[in-house]
Amino acid sequence: MNAGPARLPQSHVTLEYCRELGVELQVFTNQNANAYIYHESSAALAGKPMRWRTAKADVYGYISELLAKATDQGALDARLTAQDKERLIAFLQSFGAIKGKADGYAYTGTDRRGYSVEPGAAFDDGTVLGPVPTLSDVIASGVGQRFAFEFGYDQAMLMFQPVGGMDAIPYALAKAIGQNRITYGAKALEVKDLPDGAEVTYKDAGGRTRTRRADFVVAAMPPMVMARLKHNLGTDITAALKYAVPTPVGKIGLEYRSRWWETDEHIYGGITPTDTDLATIWYPSYGHQGRRGTLIGYYHFGADAVAYSDLPHAQRLARAVSRGVKIHGDKYRTELDHSFSVAWHRTPHIEAGWVDWPSQTGPEYKLLNRPAGHVYFAGDWLSHVIAWQHGAFTSARKVVTDIHERVMAA
Amino acid sequence: MNAGPARLPQSHVTLEYCRELGVELQVFTNQNANAYIYHESSAALAGKPMRWRTAKADVYGYISELLAKATDQGALDARLTAQDKERLIAFLQSFGAIKGKADGYAYTGTDRRGYSVEPGAAFDDGTVLGPVPTLSDVIASGVGQRFAFEFGYDQAMLMFQPVGGMDAIPYALAKAIGQNRITYGAKALEVKDLPDGAEVTYKDAGGRTRTRRADFVVAAMPPMVMARLKHNLGTDITAALKYAVPTPVGKIGLEYRSRWWETDEHIYGGITPTDTDLATIWYPSYGHQGRRGTLIGYYHFGADAVAYSDLPHAQRLARAVSRGVKIHGDKYRTELDHSFSVAWHRTPHIEAGWVDWPSQTGPEYKLLNRPAGHVYFAGDWLSHVIAWQHGAFTSARKVVTDIHERVMAA
Ligand SMILES: Cc1cc2nc3c(=O)[nH]c(=O)nc-3n(C[C@H](O)[C@H](O)[C@H](O)COP(=O)(O)OP(=O)(O)OC[C@H]3O[C@@H](n4cnc5c(N)ncnc54)[C@H](O)[C@@H]3O)c2cc1C
Ligand SMILES: Cc1cc2nc3c(=O)[nH]c(=O)nc-3n(C[C@H](O)[C@H](O)[C@H](O)COP(=O)(O)OP(=O)(O)OC[C@H]3O[C@@H](n4cnc5c(N)ncnc54)[C@H](O)[C@@H]3O)c2cc1C
Repeated sequence: MNAGPARLPQSHVTLEYCRELGVELQVFTNQNANAYIYHESSAALAGKPMRWRTAKADVYGYISELLAKATDQGALDARLTAQDKERLIAFLQSFGAIKGKADGYAYTGTDRRGYSVEPGAAFDDGTVLGPVPTLSDVIASGVGQRFAFEFGYDQAMLMFQPVGGMDAIPYALAKAIGQNRITYGAKALEVKDLPDGAEVTYKDAGGRTRTRRADFVVAAMPPMVMARLKHNLGTDITAALKYAVPTPVGKIGLEYRSRWWETDEHIYGGITPTDTDLATIWYPSYGHQGRRGTLIGYYHFGADAVAYSDLPHAQRLARAVSRGVKIHGDKYRTELDHSFSVAWHRTPHIEAGWVDWPSQTGPEYKLLNRPAGHVYFAGDWLSHVIAWQHGAFTSARKVVTDIHERVMAA
Repeated sequence: MNAGPARLPQSHVTLEYCRELGVELQVFTNQNANAYIYHESSAALAGKPMRWRTAKADVYGYISELLAKATDQGALDARLTAQDKERLIAFLQSFGAIKGKADGYAYTGTDRRGYSVEPGAAFDDGTVLGPVPTLSDVIASGVGQRFAFEFGYDQAMLMFQPVGGMDAIPYALAKAIGQNRITYGAKALEVKDLPDGAEVTYKDAGGRTRTRRADFVVAAMPPMVMARLKHNLGTDITAALKYAVPTPVGKIGLEYRSRWWETDEHIYGGITPTDTDLATIWYPSYGHQGRRGTLIGYYHFGADAVAYSDLPHAQRLARAVSRGVKIHGDKYRTELDHSFSVAWHRTPHIEAGWVDWPSQTGPEYKLLNRPAGHVYFAGDWLSHVIAWQHGAFTSARKVVTDIHERVMAA
């Protein structure tokens, strides 16, 4: 099970398992209006972190202005009735906080951007954050490209995380199953299909090689790891297992002596996406207002993950902190206490964050979703919800059901 | 302090007081992709609750289609350069999940809408929720008019609530001040300004009338309640106090034997706005996956609040439940256990949810923000953040600072 900020969508079957297993949950914050978007490579606004709320206000404001103008000028009359147009413009005025027809539906800013001086008592009516960047700059900044993330079916609020960390789930599963039924520290070396069962040879925690026989075997390892095991399931199985493409993934945890992102920047959880090699910075969704806290300093994939993982930890850290300072200032360095990084693709027995299939309709994927004699495969990689426990749970459930039906029919 | 779902924005000073006072906080969910929007009076989609995620996918999809079309056809060339246009269309493709130029940038649906059959293991690739309503119907439904709520400075995620309820804050304040310094159950009857101080006459908890004298008095009652107290502060003060317009507000709490909204509908917190007289239904932000739970069955203002508050509780309940059944089905009635309703405008000593000022720049508001001799006024109603504790805290701080400076200068 993975570490770091990890989250469970409301609709995933994982939540049902958590309920059944008694895993305590807390809210996970996947989005936060006060977190930033940081784009340093776009000419406009370059290197200026922008709050999500400000980015949304400006993008929604300007697209509302543009669409209201085009609608009003009749540019969309082929698609819109007179009544559609009226209602659409009313929506855009609410959505974008734009001016009326007399002012050309102009977007000129809104308090949704945030304040440079908070409103308060008596005559403190607040100073809205300014100045508003131009339409051209807002479009060029690319901040709007970040918005779709939170519309994603698996990423939309609300989300959860187990109290104490994701491994609360496997611990609860092990308890429900009975720990005495599980052989820990066993490394499978060979899987053999037999005429009336299957056999696994493994090295136990003490280093002794053992063989165990069963009616069926479910191999729930990552496919590229399984592909290198000795087996008698055929070369087409090996080829199919190798067909899945592993994704390099890395994270770094940065433990701070203070929760400066909360006290100084009012960011309680959420994500700052960047166009640097950090990809994203994640703020913790628990321990709010506590004394210390741990950020995720990067959570990145592919080439970025490989580049960082090629470095020793101290250099990964230095590089990550140098990027973070540009967003959060010196405290990103000065308040730092401990750190820890993981490169999943360099982790033995895991060897990737997850895998991608070039095709999930081709013969390879089909083959692995059928039993190879008495040997079955399971894992999130055999699902349409890869990189989520929902995929792993539904795959496990499917295989268990398949075996059950096979035995009942025999 | 108010009851029911109540929330603290990240940026409000209230959070700082909570930290200082040691008030434990939990995340409050002000928005949720799985909650509904329910509009029964719009012809299109009438009476069909629509998930927020579905409403957003469709509205964002269609407005992206429209704006991409208009942009591509040159309708906005006066406002956009060639490069702006290219980047804007790239943004709209991500924002709206629309097709490419060859397909007229059409919006034809997206898995952001949600699924009627969840994706899962092996060949279960899920069935995206359909059918997609027409552009005209989506616009006519008015669902998009709900989106701006969560862009509001005070309403954007992330939000908090004190564990145990809002009154954790006044309890913590009382403890910090020293409960022995507070006279509970005392009803002020008269406030008198004196040449060298001020005097309050009140009825104590035992029904005895007493008078107490001090260098200064801070009156922190609602303005329309204060306006009826006996005082010697002048008729202009009374008139100014009466100038604030009280807002009727009502809520009903519905306690259920099960958390069907979580188990059956995957709604963990958030709000369902409606165009019925309920205004909104709120799902609880805590106790997730527990056995029982309490919904807010309405949270409404103005005429709706008055209409319900004119009824006895049993009739308020029956009316609220009959509306809720249309959104959530029979379990909204059958799972109900207990209920409780509050009409703030009928609550003695409070007499409103909050007040509005016809003007905060006129003489009335100005007058009350100055001391009347040795008598000061304080409350959220003397701030630019009315109906939030931030307003009350900043107003209190301002008055205390004013008195401090006056005494220091004397
Ligand atoms: C960085 C990261 C973030 C993630 N975030 C989330 C998230 O937020 N939410 C979510 O739901 N999911 C998340 N996931 C995905 C989730 O972790 C996986 O879906 C889940 O762990 C898959 O479960 P599994 O049992 O199929 O495989 P795994 O958990 O990968 O288990 C495979 C097991 O096989 C073992 N193994 C390998 N070789 C051998 C051998 N030779 N002998 C014996 N055992 C062997 C491995 O040690 C491992 O324990 C994330 C994954 C990563 C890497
Ligand atoms: C339904 C509702 C929902 C709200 N939701 C939120 C929210 O989510 N977040 C948030 O931050 N704020 C919220 N608020 C606003 C918040 O409750 C107020 O801002 C805050 O309570 C104001 O504090 P105050 O001390 O100024 O006034 P109050 O809390 O109104 O206190 C005034 C006090 O004066 C007392 N009083 C009246 N007459 C007399 C008398 N003659 N003698 C002695 N005492 C008297 C009253 O009994 C009362 O205790 C909500 C309010 C309501 C009504």
